[in-house]
Parts: sequence; C-alpha cells; structure tokens
Amino acid sequence: MKLYTYFRSSAAYRVRIALNLKGIVAEQLPVHLVRNGGEQKLPAYRALNPQGLVPALEDEGALLTQSLAIMEYLEETHPTPALLPADAVGRARVRAIAQSIACEIHPLNNLRVLGYLGGELGLSDEQKRTWYQHWVCLGFEALEQQLARDAATGRFCHGDTPTFADCCLVPQVFNARRFDIDLSPYPTLQRIDAHCATLEAFAAAAPARQADAA
Amino acid sequence: MKLYTYFRSSAAYRVRIALNLKGIVAEQLPVHLVRNGGEQKLPAYRALNPQGLVPALEDEGALLTQSLAIMEYLEETHPTPALLPADAVGRARVRAIAQSIACEIHPLNNLRVLGYLGGELGLSDEQKRTWYQHWVCLGFEALEQQLARDAATGRFCHGDTPTFADCCLVPQVFNARRFDIDLSPYPTLQRIDAHCATLEAFAAAAPARQADAA
Repeated sequence: MKLYTYFRSSAAYRVRIALNLKGIVAEQLPVHLVRNGGEQKLPAYRALNPQGLVPALEDEGALLTQSLAIMEYLEETHPTPALLPADAVGRARVRAIAQSIACEIHPLNNLRVLGYLGGELGLSDEQKRTWYQHWVCLGFEALEQQLARDAATGRFCHGDTPTFADCCLVPQVFNARRFDIDLSPYPTLQRIDAHCATLEAFAAAAPARQADAA
Repeated sequence: MKLYTYFRSSAAYRVRIALNLKGIVAEQLPVHLVRNGGEQKLPAYRALNPQGLVPALEDEGALLTQSLAIMEYLEETHPTPALLPADAVGRARVRAIAQSIACEIHPLNNLRVLGYLGGELGLSDEQKRTWYQHWVCLGFEALEQQLARDAATGRFCHGDTPTFADCCLVPQVFNARRFDIDLSPYPTLQRIDAHCATLEAFAAAAPARQADAA
C-alpha cells in the first residue's frame, strides 16, 4: 500500500491516523503542496489523480482518493480494529461528525481556497485569518453542542474507542491551533483531542513526525 | 421516517433521490433556508439539529444529519436496490466521486458562504458569480477527466445502475445550470445527468417538484 501524502494536509493526516489505528504500514510518498508551485499540480501526479489533491492511496493496482472514501475502504478491507460502531444509528452518527468537519469546515480553509482569497480577491492576511476562524468557530460551536449533550459521546467522539470522527477531529483541532483559535469555548473537543494525543496511533500521524516535515 | 428538507438545498436533493431510488416514502418537513431570516436558525430546529443545516432525517427516534451519512444509513437499513457497488474498490470509487462533489465543490457554494462573501466581505454579485463558477468548473473539470477515462463509468457514474455518485452529481449539475455555467466542456457529466433525468426517482426529487417550491 502506498499513501500519497503531505505532512500538513489535514485530509492526509486523517488517513495516517486510520492506518496507524489499524496497524497498516503504508509506504509514504510525499507530495509537497507548496514547493515547486504545488507538486500536486505536476502532470505526473495529475495523471495519477486528476483531482490533484492529497491524500491518495494505491492498493493492489487501484488508486483511491478522498480521505473519507479511503477510510471506508480501509474499514471494509481491514475490519479490525473497527473504526465505525456496529449499529447503523451509531455509524450514521460517527459519519455525520466526520462529515461535519470534512464537508463543512475543512473545505473552506484549505490551501487552494486561501490562495483564491489572497490572490483573485486580494484579501489581506487579517481578512483571511478572520475567514478561517469564522468557519472553524461556526463548525466547532455546533460540534461542541452536539457532542456535549449526547450520551453516545465517551472518551472519544463516540464511546470509548476511536472512530472516523476522531480521525477527523484531531487534524482540525491541530489546524485551529496553528491559526491561533481560542479553543476554550470547546471543552469537549479539547478533552477528546487530549485523550487522542495519548495514543501513539494519533501522535505518530502528527505533521511534525512525518518524514516530509520541513 | 421524516425528512427535514428545502427544495433548493443540494444536499437535501441528494437524499430525496436516494429515498426515491430505494422506494422509501418519508414525510417531508420543509425548512425554508431564506424566509424568516433562515428557518434553519430558529431555536426549535437548532434544538433538533445543532448544525442548523438541512437535510436531517428522523427515523425511529434518531435524528441523522449530513447527506452522505444519511445515504450510508439508508443503504445499510434498506439495502435493496443497492446504491453502492458490491466490491470494495468500486465502493471506494463511488464514495470518492460523491465526496469530490460534497467535499470539494458544494461547501464553497452554499448559501451561508455566498452570504459571507456578499456580507462580511462586501463582494459584488459579479465577484460572487465568478467565485461560484471557479469552484464548480475546477471540480467538474477533474470529475470529467476522471469519469471519461475510466472503464468503470457506464450509463451512470459507475456502471449501469445509479449510485451515491449520481445522487450527488445531478443536484450539482442543477446548481451549475442555475448559475449559467457552460456545461459543454463536460460531455460525460452532461450525458450521465441526461440519463438520470429519464428516471422518475431523479425527476421527482427535483426542486421544482417539491411541495415547498416557491
């Protein structure tokens, strides 16, 4: 298995956590999203993945894209340990939490969007920071409410074992810290993030511990 | 089963198609995203769904959110007809296509983002249109390449039966038309969209045919 990755990519970070939790060793092939004008735009990578995004996972000749789709694939092909609960409602809850990050927060704050805001729209760094914080805080506020009020929340987002939801939460919290976002209004998110950090599967997936970290 | 929906919501439209394809009749509860300052922001709806987004699906006392998570739930609880292929690589491909729309295109173009661009950032209608078209065209270009070159593409995005991918594609093409985007560079997307339109499950889910259409 080969993972096309970038140390700071939030979506690649999710997949690295899932691989570690499942004990799968994948060869890591770095694609630098900033250097050389963005290596993900180079013809060789675009030929592989027309989306020009990371992560991508190569397994037995197939090239898989989109972090959540890759995680579902890993769950189906390497079911133990499970990263989704056994019941349909629980699975829907975990997927919804993951998607509330992957579809509502992160897409607004990735590199190419920040590039458009600064480039095409000529926004200042201050305006970009405000944009970034706006979407993170809006998303985290809803997620905090949702997790804090629900008995299904445990030491992790769902019960006492890690799921897709935690694989998405930890990279988003990491990003929030990078952008100096005050996390004190989100005690449940902070508590879960801190608990995840005690597990080597999460810690080893962190950007600073990747071979391509600058 | 009850579906909280808005006729023009692209995410609700996906779920309506999936319900129709599976022959599930759900009571439709409209949440008007524009009227009354946005009914999704009203306390009664926020109490139900802290995310303040549509769609949401109520089933046997559980409230499910996020369109793709709802579709996975429907697939697990009502497996026939299947909207995901039987093989893990095929399933990953379908989910990745669905997510390339739901995580890369649509989040940048929904109502609240357009509201921020026009409000907080004071962009003109022309700048907002350019933004909208930029992300749709970027996403459609990659998707067109991906679908056109892959033998797994059939009359639908994956083979000859509809999947999650088509449930996501059709609403996004509908939106693109609303914003006057030239679809001629995307013949494969147009062909699949036209084929879907021949099926009553897709046609009956269209915004104009919903009870809450203005």
